[in-house]
Amino acid sequence: MLAKTHLFREIHEQPAVIRNLLRQEVDKAALLVEDIRERGIHQVLIAARGSSDNAGRYANYLFGAVNRLLVALATPSLFSLYRRPPRLENSLVLGISQSGKSPDIQAVLAEARRQGALTAALTNNPTSELGQLVEHNLYLHAGKERSLAATKTYTAELALIALLSALLATDEQMLTVLNRAPDYMAETLVQQTKIAEAAVRYRYMQHCVVIGRGFNYATAFELALKLKELTYSIVEAYSSADFLHGPLAVIDEGFPTIVIAPSGVTLPEIQDTMFKLKERGAEIIVVSDDRATLEKGTTPLSLPEGIPEWLSPLMAILPGQLFAMHLAFTRGYDIDHPRGLRKIIETY
Amino acid sequence: MLAKTHLFREIHEQPAVIRNLLRQEVDKAALLVEDIRERGIHQVLIAARGSSDNAGRYANYLFGAVNRLLVALATPSLFSLYRRPPRLENSLVLGISQSGKSPDIQAVLAEARRQGALTAALTNNPTSELGQLVEHNLYLHAGKERSLAATKTYTAELALIALLSALLATDEQMLTVLNRAPDYMAETLVQQTKIAEAAVRYRYMQHCVVIGRGFNYATAFELALKLKELTYSIVEAYSSADFLHGPLAVIDEGFPTIVIAPSGVTLPEIQDTMFKLKERGAEIIVVSDDRATLEKGTTPLSLPEGIPEWLSPLMAILPGQLFAMHLAFTRGYDIDHPRGLRKIIETY
Repeated sequence: MLAKTHLFREIHEQPAVIRNLLRQEVDKAALLVEDIRERGIHQVLIAARGSSDNAGRYANYLFGAVNRLLVALATPSLFSLYRRPPRLENSLVLGISQSGKSPDIQAVLAEARRQGALTAALTNNPTSELGQLVEHNLYLHAGKERSLAATKTYTAELALIALLSALLATDEQMLTVLNRAPDYMAETLVQQTKIAEAAVRYRYMQHCVVIGRGFNYATAFELALKLKELTYSIVEAYSSADFLHGPLAVIDEGFPTIVIAPSGVTLPEIQDTMFKLKERGAEIIVVSDDRATLEKGTTPLSLPEGIPEWLSPLMAILPGQLFAMHLAFTRGYDIDHPRGLRKIIETY
Repeated sequence: MLAKTHLFREIHEQPAVIRNLLRQEVDKAALLVEDIRERGIHQVLIAARGSSDNAGRYANYLFGAVNRLLVALATPSLFSLYRRPPRLENSLVLGISQSGKSPDIQAVLAEARRQGALTAALTNNPTSELGQLVEHNLYLHAGKERSLAATKTYTAELALIALLSALLATDEQMLTVLNRAPDYMAETLVQQTKIAEAAVRYRYMQHCVVIGRGFNYATAFELALKLKELTYSIVEAYSSADFLHGPLAVIDEGFPTIVIAPSGVTLPEIQDTMFKLKERGAEIIVVSDDRATLEKGTTPLSLPEGIPEWLSPLMAILPGQLFAMHLAFTRGYDIDHPRGLRKIIETY
């Protein structure tokens, strides 16, 4: 009966959604990239909320590391409540929103247009208000998302961001690897049964901490949001560096933690954080492709090998989505309609 | 015996620290402002961790709303781990750090200098490594901070940011009001006894949520950090807008929440969030100067009247600092040496 929920189906649709998206949107993405180049743009302002804001965190690192763009995450209240927007000339202003309906995100893009910035939107609704406001209206091609917790629209947003980054870098190798993402995702989702078993142990977990860094800072935030939405646990996300500046104090014997630890330049630091967590007796759920790192966790959730770090967020969130779903199921919660949530949230 | 702790003394030193700071640093701040103007700078990159990062959140809103600067919060790992820094020409790059010793913050400023950006630091150590790296080395004048939980260095950072903003706006009215901050702060701290009594009720509180928006988004994050450091509770901070995009699901009967609700353009939205919290039976600790808003909370913590919203973060954090200290005391914890923390944290 779990298999009949929208959430279950939408999680498993992701490889197909990404495969289709990469084919369908490449030409529109190339047009946006052409405009970025022609206008000599070096900075990006991203406006988003919820899961889309977490996709924005990925863009913050990817556009920075690959394209050397300076990325700022918008503070929509400056536009919508204070009505004192910053100066945006020579910026790309990018709105990310599943529904394309949130008024505060629209306020940012409307002002950007007024100031003559380059504007673009990533939405799952080709005729949304947000899409109508911008010069480049990119489409997620995810099909209707019926579950209140976003899954396929989140990874579709990541894929579009990666596509833009690869095109802007004119990096054929990056494009080739990106096109392998659907296969890596399918391989990751095969673990389904193992994760269902692992989730049982956390039936009575009331709170936890999720740690990631760099490209997977986004994964930590998105997994924390899924756990809050679906399992009503109290979950905080941190970069491993911020975590040591204070929050480490909350960790005591048996404290549940989730560590996002794919191979890459951030892995040694994440391993060091795991060591500090173990010193304090914390329980560690670890998401990694690295065997030695997986062995250090209480509950290992494995990723396929051979994925470059910049692409890993598309895969690294999947065990987390499954874990949150199975944990909610173990607790007898309504998977598709978590309490207190609506699909379109209008904030100002 | 609480009165003999460093934390108690440092909390109560704040009005004097701010008064001294505003007098001592105004000339150096004016020199930085002159450079910002002469170089035609419209964007700021801020590098900070922990409490200083929360001061950076205040700068994000204040420099935006008052000075129309586009502010980005740095992702230090792009500089320190990935070694792929964004392009920073024509930016002010501002490092904020109590100790001025964190290697990742230094990495951001060293790269900014190399690229020819305008560089500045706010630190409490006039001879720190960070201070030596930058063109404008501004000093917090807070005296040695002995408690591991930062209090006076945080409000000193806020005051320096407000000073820079007022000078850059050439706004005499703003400067006059800023110079009243020490009196407002002293008036806020008078509540000391009332907060000691209020804290007892939360002896067994295991987790809570702190909500603020706009200028006081910073206050929500800083209060959450104090509670984590001092009381080991699990605490999450949110903007009221982000909170409705998912995390609202965790709220049930009796769930403890803290709402930062000073008068200003964000108050109606914060009141609406309080209404949604009460519908779900949440318990609300409310920090406000508005009588009607205070009356809607379970535990009202009042602010002096007549403070403009942009200045309110300097006062709004004080009841929270006192609350966190008294709660830690009620629980019998070591106020000055929370477990697992050190004063200088070197992250990469």
